[in-house]
Amino acid sequence: MTTDASILHERAIVIDGLQTCAWSREIFEQMRAGGLTMVNAASLLWENFVDGMSYVRKWQQMFDENADLIMPIRTVDDIALAKARGLTGISIGWQNTSPLEDRLDHISLFKALGVNIMQLTYNTQNYSGAGYLEKHDSGLTGFGHEVIEEMNRCGVLCDLSHVGEKTSADVIAHSRRPVCISHVLPRALHDVPRNKPDHLFVACARKGGIIGISLFSPGLRAGNDATIEDYLDAMDHVLALVGEDHVGVGTDFSTGHPRPGPWLLWANRDKGYARTLTPFGTTTIRKPRGFAAISEAPNLTAAMLARGWSVKRIEKILGGNWLRVLRETWTPA
Amino acid sequence: MTTDASILHERAIVIDGLQTCAWSREIFEQMRAGGLTMVNAASLLWENFVDGMSYVRKWQQMFDENADLIMPIRTVDDIALAKARGLTGISIGWQNTSPLEDRLDHISLFKALGVNIMQLTYNTQNYSGAGYLEKHDSGLTGFGHEVIEEMNRCGVLCDLSHVGEKTSADVIAHSRRPVCISHVLPRALHDVPRNKPDHLFVACARKGGIIGISLFSPGLRAGNDATIEDYLDAMDHVLALVGEDHVGVGTDFSTGHPRPGPWLLWANRDKGYARTLTPFGTTTIRKPRGFAAISEAPNLTAAMLARGWSVKRIEKILGGNWLRVLRETWTPA
Repeated sequence: MTTDASILHERAIVIDGLQTCAWSREIFEQMRAGGLTMVNAASLLWENFVDGMSYVRKWQQMFDENADLIMPIRTVDDIALAKARGLTGISIGWQNTSPLEDRLDHISLFKALGVNIMQLTYNTQNYSGAGYLEKHDSGLTGFGHEVIEEMNRCGVLCDLSHVGEKTSADVIAHSRRPVCISHVLPRALHDVPRNKPDHLFVACARKGGIIGISLFSPGLRAGNDATIEDYLDAMDHVLALVGEDHVGVGTDFSTGHPRPGPWLLWANRDKGYARTLTPFGTTTIRKPRGFAAISEAPNLTAAMLARGWSVKRIEKILGGNWLRVLRETWTPA
Repeated sequence: MTTDASILHERAIVIDGLQTCAWSREIFEQMRAGGLTMVNAASLLWENFVDGMSYVRKWQQMFDENADLIMPIRTVDDIALAKARGLTGISIGWQNTSPLEDRLDHISLFKALGVNIMQLTYNTQNYSGAGYLEKHDSGLTGFGHEVIEEMNRCGVLCDLSHVGEKTSADVIAHSRRPVCISHVLPRALHDVPRNKPDHLFVACARKGGIIGISLFSPGLRAGNDATIEDYLDAMDHVLALVGEDHVGVGTDFSTGHPRPGPWLLWANRDKGYARTLTPFGTTTIRKPRGFAAISEAPNLTAAMLARGWSVKRIEKILGGNWLRVLRETWTPA
């Protein structure tokens, strides 16, 4: 890494749109080594209301025990504070609205506890809509329309990464505020179900939203042989589609979970225990070489500079775009 | 009523496929006056797991306090016992699988507590499928397939009355056992969303199931002016379609709930509190003249006799068909 890249990375607001790690002090140290200003920490997949509350409580304890490395992010101002203090800010996130159960009121309750980003569905159908692995997707349900309205009102950013295609399009159409696709890869470069078609990227950007490019190698044509250059190619594809104001990073790092192991098997069954949905719980999945660990985030800045991307563009992708979207979505209406 | 009708009614096994009353001793007295051998008592609409358990508990208390009028029905043999004892048997039912929340295991648990009939969805989308008021119905979900398999295994009869059209067809196709449409009217005679098309009646009958004809007057062309003859016309339509082995009674009596009143408003909002789904919570709805109260059930037998229907046919419709379907569906596999 050239000195320029190092300086640029250190100066920048760096936001990771989604990680789903087995949280520990070691991971928070990696976040610091990677120069991350903020992470959307979303290991919640199938939890119900009570377990969703426990997820918040677990973060309260981790904030207490690791105050020298991390701090809670509740508002956009907290992000600048984390940067100034040399800490990594943690925004508590969900990959499913399962903890809402059947209650719209729970959105406001969890927002007050710091849950700022909620993915509407995780892989399968819930009260609000379909996940991308549901065979048929009838779109945003009647209740889902009310959920989006309440997220908009409370200041919760809606994430569409694992959401079904029709449901995603419906959310983008119905939401009054920008939405995100926090960790995703383009189907145009590799046609697998988990990747998303270009029209959704365009619709998301038109809404003022952001597409976080993911390191999930099954979504890259090179798979486990992928490198950081394949990752940047995927980013380049989306940049060409939507321009440099709507692209960010969403690594999908799942560091600390044994692979194969119980958490990944749980992740890849419906509701955590029912039928197996994907082989990802047991297969070997490697992150792209050059950006295979959280601590390697500075390599990304170097690789972008090496591609001749402007400093302005790099700063937007590293965190500026996320910051804009969070500013437009997190304040209660 | 002729003596013949009275004797026939008294002798028959009389099964009401669904009531959704505000249960009280007065209603149990009406059931006795109506000569009912068994009622599927399904006032559960939007309850979650804990409230589903409370519904069972409430019935335990009512069984204790009204043992001179009612008794719990757990097996088909209990129905003969209720008949012999001159009691009305109560089978605890649900109009929604909401109390399962996200747990397949809850089916076996509730079956062990006497919940023998579960409607898959009530009006809107849940984890298993769409209700008839959901704008788009993508059919039985992946999880819904597992729910049906577990109902089949545990011996819970699946009810499709308020279920969406595509989801209903998918359930009939996927279930290994007969299913019921416990309280319904034919769309062919009155084209309103709550009524069902002929093809679903035919499919249900081919599966060995039963269609319970409902007294819900908004589903009859004559509406609040309907009489027991309109009711029998609806029954006649379905009889002509599927033959006399697949038709029964499912009154949908909601006796005891003030109309308009809080329970009906709750019933007609999504999840009990969200957007209003139908005007039925506030409109005046009268049951057909001649069969406007639970105690008037003997009039039905008289009216069927007056139409010249055979005793054999009448006995099947009054309870024989329900009995056959319960026998084929309630024993754990």
